[in-house]
Amino acid sequence: MKSVKKITILGVGFMGGSLARALKKKFPSILVIGYARSKASYGKLIKLKIVDKLERSLAKAVVDSDIIILASPVLSIIEHFKKIAPHLKENAIVIDLGSSKEVIERAAEKHLPKKASFVGCHPLCGSDKSGAQFFNPDLYKGSICLITSAGGKGAKTIKEMWEKLGSKAVFINSRQHDKMLSATSHLTHLISFSLTDFVPKNYLKFAAASLKDLTRISNSPANVWADIFLSNKKNVLNDLDKFVKTLVNFGQLIKKGKREDIVDYINHINKKHRTITHLAKQKL
Amino acid sequence: MKSVKKITILGVGFMGGSLARALKKKFPSILVIGYARSKASYGKLIKLKIVDKLERSLAKAVVDSDIIILASPVLSIIEHFKKIAPHLKENAIVIDLGSSKEVIERAAEKHLPKKASFVGCHPLCGSDKSGAQFFNPDLYKGSICLITSAGGKGAKTIKEMWEKLGSKAVFINSRQHDKMLSATSHLTHLISFSLTDFVPKNYLKFAAASLKDLTRISNSPANVWADIFLSNKKNVLNDLDKFVKTLVNFGQLIKKGKREDIVDYINHINKKHRTITHLAKQKL
Repeated sequence: MKSVKKITILGVGFMGGSLARALKKKFPSILVIGYARSKASYGKLIKLKIVDKLERSLAKAVVDSDIIILASPVLSIIEHFKKIAPHLKENAIVIDLGSSKEVIERAAEKHLPKKASFVGCHPLCGSDKSGAQFFNPDLYKGSICLITSAGGKGAKTIKEMWEKLGSKAVFINSRQHDKMLSATSHLTHLISFSLTDFVPKNYLKFAAASLKDLTRISNSPANVWADIFLSNKKNVLNDLDKFVKTLVNFGQLIKKGKREDIVDYINHINKKHRTITHLAKQKL
Repeated sequence: MKSVKKITILGVGFMGGSLARALKKKFPSILVIGYARSKASYGKLIKLKIVDKLERSLAKAVVDSDIIILASPVLSIIEHFKKIAPHLKENAIVIDLGSSKEVIERAAEKHLPKKASFVGCHPLCGSDKSGAQFFNPDLYKGSICLITSAGGKGAKTIKEMWEKLGSKAVFINSRQHDKMLSATSHLTHLISFSLTDFVPKNYLKFAAASLKDLTRISNSPANVWADIFLSNKKNVLNDLDKFVKTLVNFGQLIKKGKREDIVDYINHINKKHRTITHLAKQKL
């Protein structure tokens, strides 16, 4: 990180805004630039004082920048590759925070110039809130950041950046990443959305704690999640299919009505669940 | 509640134990008796000092009691009806805290003597912890208690009891109750259990917050939930079928790949979700 003088963030929302503040906190001398396309978001971000400087021109925001962070929804990250390409300096490092990695990596390869390097990142943290106003400078502390481009020129610098911010950097290839995240996050959102859609509206005032738990992420933003589902379509549909089979099998067990079989099955699930709880409590 | 001198709790676990402490806190002069069948649970409960007196004989626990509270899993509540029937005093009120109400009401009608009255109760609160050691005397404060036997002789007294403990008592018939709880709680648990079963074990250490949210209730006790699924089988299987269709339709939307349609669908869900969040924040 020693040679880094200027960092630009495109997409100063909750994730990008929190990263801006985390970077300023850890590296006060680095200039952090934000990009705000619309007048409305410029006005909002200026008030929040979240970055050192806010640009409305993409060229100005990116020029001379050592690290460019793309923190918008997946499909818009791909659009940004094309737009920033002409303005990147020699040895610029471009990273993204998207939740699907294969399509992004392919697009980076296609659109970014050879003089720049790309490092795919996916910090495993977030919030059900969206918008820069909820920014949290400690968001990345104690979380895992998956890095999908171990081979790139900038990988070492970016690993160092995440580690200095208190994240644990873990290298994984983009194919494995997308397969894993489909199961651990994308399917989960699909289930929560579907459950909220399913529950009859007149029952909502009697929502038990369990329903509140399972629908908590149902306010995740539509544009972000439409992009994730579409950009990881194959894995998500595959997992959905398997999950539906798991549900139907459970239904069969209930239909058959052998109490002991249901008790055994739930006991097995209880045991597996303790692994999740145990891991959740581990310090990085 | 003025005429109530003695209350007996069968099933002094988390729910029953919390109720014992809530009753003692609000009505210090009422004698609260617990029943512990096994030596092990007797020893454990004696140490917790959760009730005024602990009995290992069901007859002794129930005799002269004004209110008998059945707080065990559903099928064991039904067994208790048969066992306590010969020992009930004139005008004794028997209530239960079970999560399925139709089978319980039918069993009460069949097994309890005419001199006693039955009031089905379902407090909409709980915890993913089980066991009397986690008892919380304020568990019922600010929660809803559904009462499914408005016509019974004891209904007025029991409504008063819940209200004095800070619960909002809502009358609903047992058929509607089971239909509603299937959608708001039973299906939710089935989904959580299935998701925990589904996720590949080697991915667990990278569990995102969303997965932790949705699997939180997967440690709910097997004996309790086997009974609930079996005692509300028809509604649960019916809702499971509808929910699977909702999932499959979402999958179709992703397969078709029209971004705007997915965005519209999630926006509609976001809006409905705000109703849940809004209701959750309401004071009773």
